[in-house]
Amino acid sequence: MNHYRILIDCSDEKGLVYKVSSIFFKHELNILSNNEFVDKENNKFFMRSVVAGDADASVLQAELKAVLPKDASLDIIAPAKKRIVLMATKESHALGDILIRYEAGELDAEIVAVISNYDLLEPLVRKFDIPYHTISHEGLGREEHEQKVLDLLSSFEPIDYIVLAKYMRILTPLFVESYDDRIINIHHSFLPAFIGANPYKQAFKRGVKIIGATAHFVNNNLDEGPIIAQDVIAVDHAYGWKELQRLGRDVEKIVLSRALKMALEDRIFVNANKTVIF
Amino acid sequence: MNHYRILIDCSDEKGLVYKVSSIFFKHELNILSNNEFVDKENNKFFMRSVVAGDADASVLQAELKAVLPKDASLDIIAPAKKRIVLMATKESHALGDILIRYEAGELDAEIVAVISNYDLLEPLVRKFDIPYHTISHEGLGREEHEQKVLDLLSSFEPIDYIVLAKYMRILTPLFVESYDDRIINIHHSFLPAFIGANPYKQAFKRGVKIIGATAHFVNNNLDEGPIIAQDVIAVDHAYGWKELQRLGRDVEKIVLSRALKMALEDRIFVNANKTVIF
Amino acid sequence: MNHYRILIDCSDEKGLVYKVSSIFFKHELNILSNNEFVDKENNKFFMRSVVAGDADASVLQAELKAVLPKDASLDIIAPAKKRIVLMATKESHALGDILIRYEAGELDAEIVAVISNYDLLEPLVRKFDIPYHTISHEGLGREEHEQKVLDLLSSFEPIDYIVLAKYMRILTPLFVESYDDRIINIHHSFLPAFIGANPYKQAFKRGVKIIGATAHFVNNNLDEGPIIAQDVIAVDHAYGWKELQRLGRDVEKIVLSRALKMALEDRIFVNANKTVIF
Amino acid sequence: MNHYRILIDCSDEKGLVYKVSSIFFKHELNILSNNEFVDKENNKFFMRSVVAGDADASVLQAELKAVLPKDASLDIIAPAKKRIVLMATKESHALGDILIRYEAGELDAEIVAVISNYDLLEPLVRKFDIPYHTISHEGLGREEHEQKVLDLLSSFEPIDYIVLAKYMRILTPLFVESYDDRIINIHHSFLPAFIGANPYKQAFKRGVKIIGATAHFVNNNLDEGPIIAQDVIAVDHAYGWKELQRLGRDVEKIVLSRALKMALEDRIFVNANKTVIF
Repeated sequence: MNHYRILIDCSDEKGLVYKVSSIFFKHELNILSNNEFVDKENNKFFMRSVVAGDADASVLQAELKAVLPKDASLDIIAPAKKRIVLMATKESHALGDILIRYEAGELDAEIVAVISNYDLLEPLVRKFDIPYHTISHEGLGREEHEQKVLDLLSSFEPIDYIVLAKYMRILTPLFVESYDDRIINIHHSFLPAFIGANPYKQAFKRGVKIIGATAHFVNNNLDEGPIIAQDVIAVDHAYGWKELQRLGRDVEKIVLSRALKMALEDRIFVNANKTVIF
Repeated sequence: MNHYRILIDCSDEKGLVYKVSSIFFKHELNILSNNEFVDKENNKFFMRSVVAGDADASVLQAELKAVLPKDASLDIIAPAKKRIVLMATKESHALGDILIRYEAGELDAEIVAVISNYDLLEPLVRKFDIPYHTISHEGLGREEHEQKVLDLLSSFEPIDYIVLAKYMRILTPLFVESYDDRIINIHHSFLPAFIGANPYKQAFKRGVKIIGATAHFVNNNLDEGPIIAQDVIAVDHAYGWKELQRLGRDVEKIVLSRALKMALEDRIFVNANKTVIF
Repeated sequence: MNHYRILIDCSDEKGLVYKVSSIFFKHELNILSNNEFVDKENNKFFMRSVVAGDADASVLQAELKAVLPKDASLDIIAPAKKRIVLMATKESHALGDILIRYEAGELDAEIVAVISNYDLLEPLVRKFDIPYHTISHEGLGREEHEQKVLDLLSSFEPIDYIVLAKYMRILTPLFVESYDDRIINIHHSFLPAFIGANPYKQAFKRGVKIIGATAHFVNNNLDEGPIIAQDVIAVDHAYGWKELQRLGRDVEKIVLSRALKMALEDRIFVNANKTVIF
Repeated sequence: MNHYRILIDCSDEKGLVYKVSSIFFKHELNILSNNEFVDKENNKFFMRSVVAGDADASVLQAELKAVLPKDASLDIIAPAKKRIVLMATKESHALGDILIRYEAGELDAEIVAVISNYDLLEPLVRKFDIPYHTISHEGLGREEHEQKVLDLLSSFEPIDYIVLAKYMRILTPLFVESYDDRIINIHHSFLPAFIGANPYKQAFKRGVKIIGATAHFVNNNLDEGPIIAQDVIAVDHAYGWKELQRLGRDVEKIVLSRALKMALEDRIFVNANKTVIF
């Protein structure tokens, strides 16, 4: 008995659900869950089905392709551990949250390595028997440093997702394009509020009554990639910016882990600069 | 061009989505939205489709019935104003919230009447040119009082929903069964916490740090009907029970109006003692 | 027995609590609640005490002034209905929420009038026997229109607060300065995200997973005045911008009414471009 | 320069703030923060001041005692690492969250040991160089098992707090009384909803739309001790009870860590069966 996640992303037209479900029916697939969404503004159709049955993936692939619009993106995924690389700088909360989940077997992933521009988090990561690579940026230009990271990453391929667990360096377009829609970042503000550096200081200065965090795919415009998950927490005038930061960390780590979970379960579609999540 | 909400609730079996969507396809219906859920524990299938096209409702009804399991409940609804009756006692916040939405044309409903066991809210309701009926419970037994309410209600039929906007009397099984899954109540606690009387006093006494409200269908067990919507708000030790009550009213009214909105849009399925909401 | 709210806002120095409380003690005042906050960054002290007793306000004023720093702002307020003017444009939700609370006696205020640049909301406001003034902006320059509003406002003095319940016109510095820290606005986004026009469209376009609303005092920089209250609500990809707007209205009205409540209870201090709220 | 947290809990009477602050003033203490609360229902006064200066704790203790009511509980605490013992059973999320914070230096505490009735979490705990003690309950009566735990605990004294990070056994009154108001538990529901076993199954069965977690001090009535912190998360019909459990874990761990933080900062007063938290 096979178990597949079937992801369809194509231009919308009448009969898509019928055509897809007729193939499921023909192969006597059991539909475990089924979600559809039509983006009317852009005439786009999104569908995620989880099915179980005896059909062969390549047969399904061929038959579905035949009935879907030409522009269809179709993925038939047999659930398996995804290979992920974590990147971090100095803070351990987001990274640690992922490590504890990993140790508990909660993540359907293999953490191939952790890469950092500092060696500060090495003792923590080593406890979990995960390779830790320090690639210091000191004395290097941005491209030079990134090239070293890219070289290291290429040695880990295939990589499904790169998770920036508070990696505090801006990535160049070259880097981002190499891992299009596969880099998940946690930004420590409720985007698009407080884009850029020191969002907690900005939030403190602005006197907001709620702070937040945003997990998003990274694209070429800093802090402007498709948003995956957001959450917030209430604060008041008595919080200094360091307390906002401390409180915000709890939101950051939960939001990042939530986004990672959705990515590992193949629940996220990127729709232009937005996400559709089932 | 017709516009239908098609609601299906039946035992689950393979091919349901295919069979239903093939009929939609045959009639060249445009699927505006489509939601499905399978309750695996109870082997139940729920589907809500919003479709547009030239097909006739009675034809669709017959063809869908023919392919669905024998136990299927099938509703094909052409969106129209629902007829609702509001019931209240003394507090105006939940009632007033509905009235303001009504006046703004936000509710796809006609408020046929407001019934209360007091005349306190009459001046407010009259402002909105809605009939107000006081049926005092004083000097009457519970059944006697209810019979008068039921008699009045029968004069308003057809009634789609009865909305208890802080109607502070317990309904008897006779009453409830007359309007099965059609009575929406707002309970002023985060059910199942603080069932029964004076939930804010109970919450104060217990020293909770969050209070809430619950909108639910009424069944024969007080405060135990299927939950439609819930929300909460943070509080602390400085709130007395009257302040909890005052704060809680904001949650109550929003939760009740949210539940009513979903009911008016035919988004709620009752699944044993729970709801499936699309 | 008198009942006072005593508000102190001054530069911080040692012994302030002692000096103030010694005067309370001398006059045998009963302290019903007491809150202090020190803004260390700006060396500012804020205190709000609610006291009851036989002391005379003018005596307290003199004695407190004598022990407080020279720069102290001191208010001794005997709670009384505040005089407020509401301003709105076309939407009724925020205005209606205030009207329902007003009718229920929940607000310690007298609504002197509602002013709008349209006559759309007149039928609603008239129901509550509140004067409604339409001052159309058509054919008028901004200053010209505002001058007419200012003239009308001056006829209502004294005014404690002007509440912009979705008044969709930008105010000039002249207007704002006339009512410094007394104009409360509701902005339909989680500021500082989506400053400016059509925040729901902006939010939809950005694909955020949470939307919000912000109540703030109005200052000369649009949407940049001191924030009083904020709240948010979760959304997803299935919401179009009109649905975001509809959902957001519930947040807007609750946040505005919450801010108004705090203003009426003299709980808000303006601290540069932020608020301290007890 | 000394730094103290001064905690006062006594029956309320006029002049308490004056009397306390006059002593602070006399000793030229700098008040860093100051919070008071009067529980009018029970005529109780609570005050927490953080002060800095040259005064000696024993002098302050004597002088404050002299002016406070006879029943006053007075604590003058020089902030220092608290000694805590963690107890857990099989789940690692709450324990792991504390360990990551501990490793990051975020907790002002020394984790003396972890005690469990299983050895499952030993590998995780050992990574952090913290002693792990398995005291299996198998083949032992409840009292017998607890006596072994109590014996071990007594070897760790002094202990400031025992943190039950998903310790899934009920404690007897003997145990609880030994560590009165010093045992912090995380209950996996929004108390008082779903007291007792398997709250996520109960929540699933009830069909709630929000689940939560509650951190509380343990007293003799199971799940009925003073509540310290609560939080919630929205769910819907599509979540099975295992998914509720998985989602709920994020709330549990954050709520427990938040409660622990407040305990370590001496911010919590127990007021009968409730808490006052500054």
